[in-house]
Amino acid sequence: MTEPLMIANQGSFAAGGLVVRTPGTYDPAAPGPEGQTLHGDHAYVSYQIPVDARRLPIVMLHGHLQFAKTYETTPDGREGFNTLFLRRGFGVYLMDQPRRGRGGQSTVPGNLPAAREDQFWFNTFRVGIWPEYFEGVQFARDAATLNQYFRQSTPNTGSFDLYVSADATAAVFDTSGPGILVTHSQGGGVGWHARMKTERIRAIVSYEPGSNFPFPEGEVPETLPSAAGPLEPLSVPVEEFRKLTEIPIIIYYGDYIPEKWCTNPGQDQWRVRIDMARTWAETVNRHGGDATVVHLPSIGVTGNTHFPFSDLNNIEIADLMSEFLASKGLDAR
Amino acid sequence: MTEPLMIANQGSFAAGGLVVRTPGTYDPAAPGPEGQTLHGDHAYVSYQIPVDARRLPIVMLHGHLQFAKTYETTPDGREGFNTLFLRRGFGVYLMDQPRRGRGGQSTVPGNLPAAREDQFWFNTFRVGIWPEYFEGVQFARDAATLNQYFRQSTPNTGSFDLYVSADATAAVFDTSGPGILVTHSQGGGVGWHARMKTERIRAIVSYEPGSNFPFPEGEVPETLPSAAGPLEPLSVPVEEFRKLTEIPIIIYYGDYIPEKWCTNPGQDQWRVRIDMARTWAETVNRHGGDATVVHLPSIGVTGNTHFPFSDLNNIEIADLMSEFLASKGLDAR
Repeated sequence: MTEPLMIANQGSFAAGGLVVRTPGTYDPAAPGPEGQTLHGDHAYVSYQIPVDARRLPIVMLHGHLQFAKTYETTPDGREGFNTLFLRRGFGVYLMDQPRRGRGGQSTVPGNLPAAREDQFWFNTFRVGIWPEYFEGVQFARDAATLNQYFRQSTPNTGSFDLYVSADATAAVFDTSGPGILVTHSQGGGVGWHARMKTERIRAIVSYEPGSNFPFPEGEVPETLPSAAGPLEPLSVPVEEFRKLTEIPIIIYYGDYIPEKWCTNPGQDQWRVRIDMARTWAETVNRHGGDATVVHLPSIGVTGNTHFPFSDLNNIEIADLMSEFLASKGLDAR
Repeated sequence: MTEPLMIANQGSFAAGGLVVRTPGTYDPAAPGPEGQTLHGDHAYVSYQIPVDARRLPIVMLHGHLQFAKTYETTPDGREGFNTLFLRRGFGVYLMDQPRRGRGGQSTVPGNLPAAREDQFWFNTFRVGIWPEYFEGVQFARDAATLNQYFRQSTPNTGSFDLYVSADATAAVFDTSGPGILVTHSQGGGVGWHARMKTERIRAIVSYEPGSNFPFPEGEVPETLPSAAGPLEPLSVPVEEFRKLTEIPIIIYYGDYIPEKWCTNPGQDQWRVRIDMARTWAETVNRHGGDATVVHLPSIGVTGNTHFPFSDLNNIEIADLMSEFLASKGLDAR
């Protein structure tokens, strides 16, 4: 039995977004498109603030195909980072980014193919090589867990737009106030770009950032080839890049990432991502920043998939994050 | 200041759903559609159970274009039915139905037009006749409220399917155990059909049910014409219909519903819906059931839109629901 949660307040809101408008005058008796608006491209955010909360709340942003469920109950039914960090005294804001899940109202049309891709993502998220699980993987092997895991996906309702998502992520901090941003995978790139839009992001903890690493103009490394295709860095003005040197940043990657070219694209893409992340952190630090890349197996934490925060050892993963926050003085009450 | 919430446990899960499969064998080295599955058509459910909870939890299902936000923080920032009923000692399960919001993974393809329809829904949801608000409407008139209101919509990610949604709603009760179902608008029809699939639904509170009223074969009333189009009843076998006579049911409608044909389609459609609801309740009661239709203005509760549970007087609306639950012995601890 766990202790009850003491919640001072909780709720939800839309953050950011655009309004698009069709010219003309709306006629209520014969409604047509004329004079009508659409509010879209916002993030949906739910939050809980515990009693006696720490000063800085944590905003959690998911990755590709995912939504806030990433941080809620794990596929095998344990507490996710949402409730774990509430118990540790942090206010927690959970986002669905624009054009995903509850932020699904897009200002651009979308086409949803109902693609059958479970096995592709099982491999890309490094649970194993379908239908086999990786040896020692921190993932429960029962059918109910796999069913819940596959059902924590939801498709884009409009094309993914890095800048639309970064705008909405920055807007969350207008309501939450200064805080810590936790990102995952595709959300990693969103997080870097959100920090360039708001100083209210006081630290970033990024799990397995996948793409859209921003480098200063003139210092952009080469595109990296992998068995899953090339990974391209982005170029941003140096004065924008410098905003990423103003805060502590930590990046974690899990297990089963090969050191050399590997014919399984599900694994090989992570080889170039961790490589790019290391180059990026070196660049941040060369400009006076404070970025660290932790490859979990190198510190003795093994078996992690692409979702360390919901893996079987997620308490250990949370402890590492807590230690990071404490070491940077980010957990004061 | 409100008292802290004491939460014994909370989490989220997927309920129900289908698995579709493409024949063949999956090749991890060259991923194609062969041998892949898609898990879809489930509901997404989040829940909170307060300390010392009442015996029957409440499952809340939204209406057309909506998702669980319906029952969360109101557009003007007050507590919605979710937190209000937690405070009243009920476990609360909040659903996003299949093919909507966080239940967005559909087994059938979808096409999202990014339609500009805010004004149409402002009128249909009886906030006023755009750009005017109804006199006395229980809706805050500031710009921030309207912005949040428009952003609590999200489109279907696959065509709405009454039976897919009813299956998933019934499946929620496999996890929650026996409980009370609260429905809204389009969700009303889903709720009646869910009760025909599970006896675990012990009562239904339906706000402004809009369509898909099921009548027993041979007792189906005529389709009702309105300025917004016809409202058609459904026919079901009498033995299915009888399952709706086994539980207490209460139906509420708000204000601004005309008694006679009205040229504003946004209002006129509700004239035939409350008419159909009354005929339906009479039919349920004729078969030995316990269904009541409450037109809120007739008991002195005025100004309600299509969303009574989030209107400015939502405490009063919650009190009415609490009284109903108490009167039927549904609130025991």
